[in-house]
Amino acid sequence: MNLPTLSDIQAAHARIQPFIHRTPVLTSSAINEIAGCELFFKCENFQKVGAFKARGAANAVMKLSLEQRANGVATHSSGNHAAALARAASVAGIPSYIVMPSNAPEIKKKAVKGYGGEIIECEPTLQARETTLEAVVERTGATFIPPFDYLDVIEGQATCALELLEDQPDLDVVMAPVGGGGLLAGTALLVHYMNPQIQVIAGEPTGADDAFRSFHEGSIIPNTSTNTIADGLLTSLGKLPFAVIQKHVKDILLATDPQIIEAMRLVFERMKLVIEPSGAVPLAALLASKERFAGKKVGIVFSGGNVDLGKLPF
Amino acid sequence: MNLPTLSDIQAAHARIQPFIHRTPVLTSSAINEIAGCELFFKCENFQKVGAFKARGAANAVMKLSLEQRANGVATHSSGNHAAALARAASVAGIPSYIVMPSNAPEIKKKAVKGYGGEIIECEPTLQARETTLEAVVERTGATFIPPFDYLDVIEGQATCALELLEDQPDLDVVMAPVGGGGLLAGTALLVHYMNPQIQVIAGEPTGADDAFRSFHEGSIIPNTSTNTIADGLLTSLGKLPFAVIQKHVKDILLATDPQIIEAMRLVFERMKLVIEPSGAVPLAALLASKERFAGKKVGIVFSGGNVDLGKLPF
Repeated sequence: MNLPTLSDIQAAHARIQPFIHRTPVLTSSAINEIAGCELFFKCENFQKVGAFKARGAANAVMKLSLEQRANGVATHSSGNHAAALARAASVAGIPSYIVMPSNAPEIKKKAVKGYGGEIIECEPTLQARETTLEAVVERTGATFIPPFDYLDVIEGQATCALELLEDQPDLDVVMAPVGGGGLLAGTALLVHYMNPQIQVIAGEPTGADDAFRSFHEGSIIPNTSTNTIADGLLTSLGKLPFAVIQKHVKDILLATDPQIIEAMRLVFERMKLVIEPSGAVPLAALLASKERFAGKKVGIVFSGGNVDLGKLPF
Repeated sequence: MNLPTLSDIQAAHARIQPFIHRTPVLTSSAINEIAGCELFFKCENFQKVGAFKARGAANAVMKLSLEQRANGVATHSSGNHAAALARAASVAGIPSYIVMPSNAPEIKKKAVKGYGGEIIECEPTLQARETTLEAVVERTGATFIPPFDYLDVIEGQATCALELLEDQPDLDVVMAPVGGGGLLAGTALLVHYMNPQIQVIAGEPTGADDAFRSFHEGSIIPNTSTNTIADGLLTSLGKLPFAVIQKHVKDILLATDPQIIEAMRLVFERMKLVIEPSGAVPLAALLASKERFAGKKVGIVFSGGNVDLGKLPF
């Protein structure tokens, strides 16, 4: 496995810079007081398409050869990766084909269409998504860009931690949420290269805790069912991310849905920021294990801000 | 009337700098596209106590003589000025006495107590507020710091536009909401000093449109009743602010509650920022009169972010 090196990640950052925001690192003295430690929030809720996913998708698209570009890109996704890939393709001036389950939220479909992506609907099963995608790739010759189990995507997501450590090098811990594992693996790799003294710790919902179980078991144990408000973290861990996580992640901490909602509310109230439930998971996990972080400097990635405002949990 | 000069406002800025945030100016390409002009949002929702009010209160408190400080400060308010004054007093290490109507929201009382302010409850009428305040001042010798009809407060609020123009000097228009008029008067003064080519335009809710009526009539016509979601703008215009507004404000534009809610939702969705209804009023007014701003560069003050998350209007 040819993992991205530090210079690969730096090159990725230069490559995608014209197409992404350099998001700010914000702090809150009120939340620091509650947490008993010093927190630095990397605001990927401000990122293009409202989530860090813009990074990995842009990197994967911009690394395609001219021949590959001619036929466009394809993926299956009902979430932020769909919009991120459609946008990256649109910026590159190439077609994108997005297989979406028929029950995907209208707002997600609208976002993909808004970026000029072509939506191909299928039955809402993983099986249907995969066979439909195969048929699309067969028909169009498009390159499949998976949401997380893909080195160029992991390399792109790693640029988020690169910016965080540039702005705030003096950290004891960096936290990120874990779903498929692309963001966490990218974060862990980058932190390992830049400063292996810094611990990388993940937050995961108890209602979709396959990364937690896999991490402790030493092999991937997928979710058989999921039940959490953190809808961005329902996917099971990918193989490539897991290999990195096993090596470079210190621990995975769980948070219950009430803890996630409480952390999300805290960020809305005290920081005046809109974050999605998935983005609140690391803070929720930290607040549930405060003593472990007492007095430390902790960087936390707010992974995204795409929440249905009509259905806020408070 | 000895209006603050530019150097007074610059001195105020230096005076309060240790006690306030320098808030960022943020942009949104999505909202620019909708508005058909280029918008620069001064994010006072990130300000201490969640609103620009922290500026005026800090300035007024820091300008007190040592003799005055010894007896503390007092005001009557059920809103952001109450918390802002209690905080400014706490930072200065002096007592604060806040007269609040008995029906003031628990969360506002909690904020005042959290800053060490002493709350004196009274009947929820203006009459009761004023006589209770008089008694408190009589008893304690505290200095009354009014929320907007007070030069040191206006001088403090003017520092918000000072920062905006430092960060983004190249503007055609600056917009602020108007309630009592402290922020608008400070903004208009500062812009007049820095660059009189820039138009200052206010946004006001149709359901509390006394500034609009007073501006066009040439004399103060208070609200007899109010009905708007923009709870920070219910107060009638103050005399000192009105004198400045008549001279240096170009126009006052109205926005209906549905327009205010729509603008607020846009900011939550596209900018991932929590703002209170009052803070959304200028953007709502601009979107209701788009043609007037076509192609222009407009600075807009997001005046605050203190909204009851359990009662969001969407």
